[in-house]
Amino acid sequence: MDIRTIEWKNNKIKIIDQTRLPVKLEYIYIDNLKALWQAIKRMKIRGAPALGAAAGLGAYLGIRDYKAKDSSQFARRLDAVTKYIASSRPTARNLFWALERVGRVAVINKDKPLFYIKRLILAEAGKILEEDRAACRKIGYYGAKFIQNNDTILTVCNAGILATIDYGTALGVIYRAREEGKALKVFACETRPILQGARLTTWELDKKGIDVTLICDSMAAILMKQAKVKKVIVGADRITANGDVANKIGTYSLSVLAKHHQIPFYVAAPSSTFDLSLRHGGQIPIEERDSREVTELFFKKPIARRLIKVFNPAFDVTPHSLITAIITEKGIIKAPYQKNIRRIIGR
Amino acid sequence: MDIRTIEWKNNKIKIIDQTRLPVKLEYIYIDNLKALWQAIKRMKIRGAPALGAAAGLGAYLGIRDYKAKDSSQFARRLDAVTKYIASSRPTARNLFWALERVGRVAVINKDKPLFYIKRLILAEAGKILEEDRAACRKIGYYGAKFIQNNDTILTVCNAGILATIDYGTALGVIYRAREEGKALKVFACETRPILQGARLTTWELDKKGIDVTLICDSMAAILMKQAKVKKVIVGADRITANGDVANKIGTYSLSVLAKHHQIPFYVAAPSSTFDLSLRHGGQIPIEERDSREVTELFFKKPIARRLIKVFNPAFDVTPHSLITAIITEKGIIKAPYQKNIRRIIGR
Repeated sequence: MDIRTIEWKNNKIKIIDQTRLPVKLEYIYIDNLKALWQAIKRMKIRGAPALGAAAGLGAYLGIRDYKAKDSSQFARRLDAVTKYIASSRPTARNLFWALERVGRVAVINKDKPLFYIKRLILAEAGKILEEDRAACRKIGYYGAKFIQNNDTILTVCNAGILATIDYGTALGVIYRAREEGKALKVFACETRPILQGARLTTWELDKKGIDVTLICDSMAAILMKQAKVKKVIVGADRITANGDVANKIGTYSLSVLAKHHQIPFYVAAPSSTFDLSLRHGGQIPIEERDSREVTELFFKKPIARRLIKVFNPAFDVTPHSLITAIITEKGIIKAPYQKNIRRIIGR
Repeated sequence: MDIRTIEWKNNKIKIIDQTRLPVKLEYIYIDNLKALWQAIKRMKIRGAPALGAAAGLGAYLGIRDYKAKDSSQFARRLDAVTKYIASSRPTARNLFWALERVGRVAVINKDKPLFYIKRLILAEAGKILEEDRAACRKIGYYGAKFIQNNDTILTVCNAGILATIDYGTALGVIYRAREEGKALKVFACETRPILQGARLTTWELDKKGIDVTLICDSMAAILMKQAKVKKVIVGADRITANGDVANKIGTYSLSVLAKHHQIPFYVAAPSSTFDLSLRHGGQIPIEERDSREVTELFFKKPIARRLIKVFNPAFDVTPHSLITAIITEKGIIKAPYQKNIRRIIGR
């Protein structure tokens, strides 16, 4: 079964509404900027690479029908569109990276006719999608080298098809290892509070015929202690120059647990997730989300009183010292991270 | 506000139905063995000391109206009742401990008239409740010595009033520190899958006017990293001769995280939780519960497909090497555990 998380179709952005999974696989079409912003905010689309794709296409939606008098008015419009999209979610680097790419195309071609600049912006957004598809497959290729036959792999959140265009980063490694004929089992952490692991990762691995077992996040440690986890592979929302990794809340916890149990801990991410302007993870903005995600269990039945104080960060930072390797489409990065990130990701 | 989790009233067991919290504080009366078994199984009552109390009173319910021809028929009945109650949940030591106490009373007095043995059994069950009330207060007294003014304490599951008769073990330490005038804040891990932390711990701490913040289990690590947790205090379901501690799933994870962040990790439990017949934690039977607790979020809206494999252990074991001290009503136990448990808990 071929699943595509996001594509440009009939002059609209076509996405899977991930808030409906696993109950229903439902596609929705987005044809205006506000709908896109809300789709991102409400996590109908999520996952750093998919957010990059959405942002690029969204920038086009924001300027497509705009009638500018001149190129400077157009530039102001594009700037406003970019800032608006950027306000949807703060942590994933790819979103800003895509907006910067699209902005650069506009700047470089600012003397060209507006209809032509618009076309170039759409083309650039399309390139972002195509490049991600290729990058994920390369990540899979590099990462699968770490996977042995009969490995049992633990992952958190969803870094699969549903976080990218159609293949995945951490799960891309798993898909590739499987394509190479390796037998493997996956433990998916449910990933409170929004349960991307339970809702999305088990759904897509199951669709792809991969043996997956769902656990609560608090159960990972005991599986490691029982030697039932051979590797941990996670995605990333932002990676700083020193190799610190922001990813879904709970990732840092797994990295400490993996270290304690001497289990390799891999991060799989495209180069678009790296933010070399930041020296370390402490500089990454961490989104704090609505407390009702915790108190109401996916916005349904209350599990704690509304007024109870809640701490609900959506991401955490894993220091490079707890990471065995970072798998990118440009190759494997290991310690010393600062030096090797500069060498492989470049500047 | 005075809350009593379990008591003997109007010749029935009166308990708080904990599955209704925090939405509603509802008391239910139990007057037969089957209803008690189901109340335990469905976690209307839970928490090791409260289960001990329920088991003792339940044994009385099971023999109260039984007309035995002779003492050996009575003994067989009590034995059957005991086995039935014991089949409700396997991990908490207190449940078996209470049944053994009641059984001993029957054996010692087997030559007495049956009406009198029945009365002794009820008296013994009542003593279990009263002793727990006293033990929890002593645990609070000893444990509060570890608490400094302005401490921030992290706990998991519910080891409070709702896990005991009316005071708590881990939360008893917090209540006592507060009674001593110490300011403190508590982080409550929600405790998936059944969410005792979210539903019960935030409810009772809030009722008692203690500053409590709810977090998902996966968020504990980052709080520790940010130095926002000064101490971890948890309860216990069973403690073996070497100091290994079975407690709600997720406890082991917290102990590893506490070690990594050099945060003291305390276990608070009455001596009735110790099982000196077991040498180490690997010998403790761990209950595995219905997968729907994970896939359906407290038995409501599905979050993963029913057929997805689930690993759903209800408890884990924390090795003594990761425990700073065990706080009991008989005093503080530190390493070397085997020796000191024998000295303080005796045998």
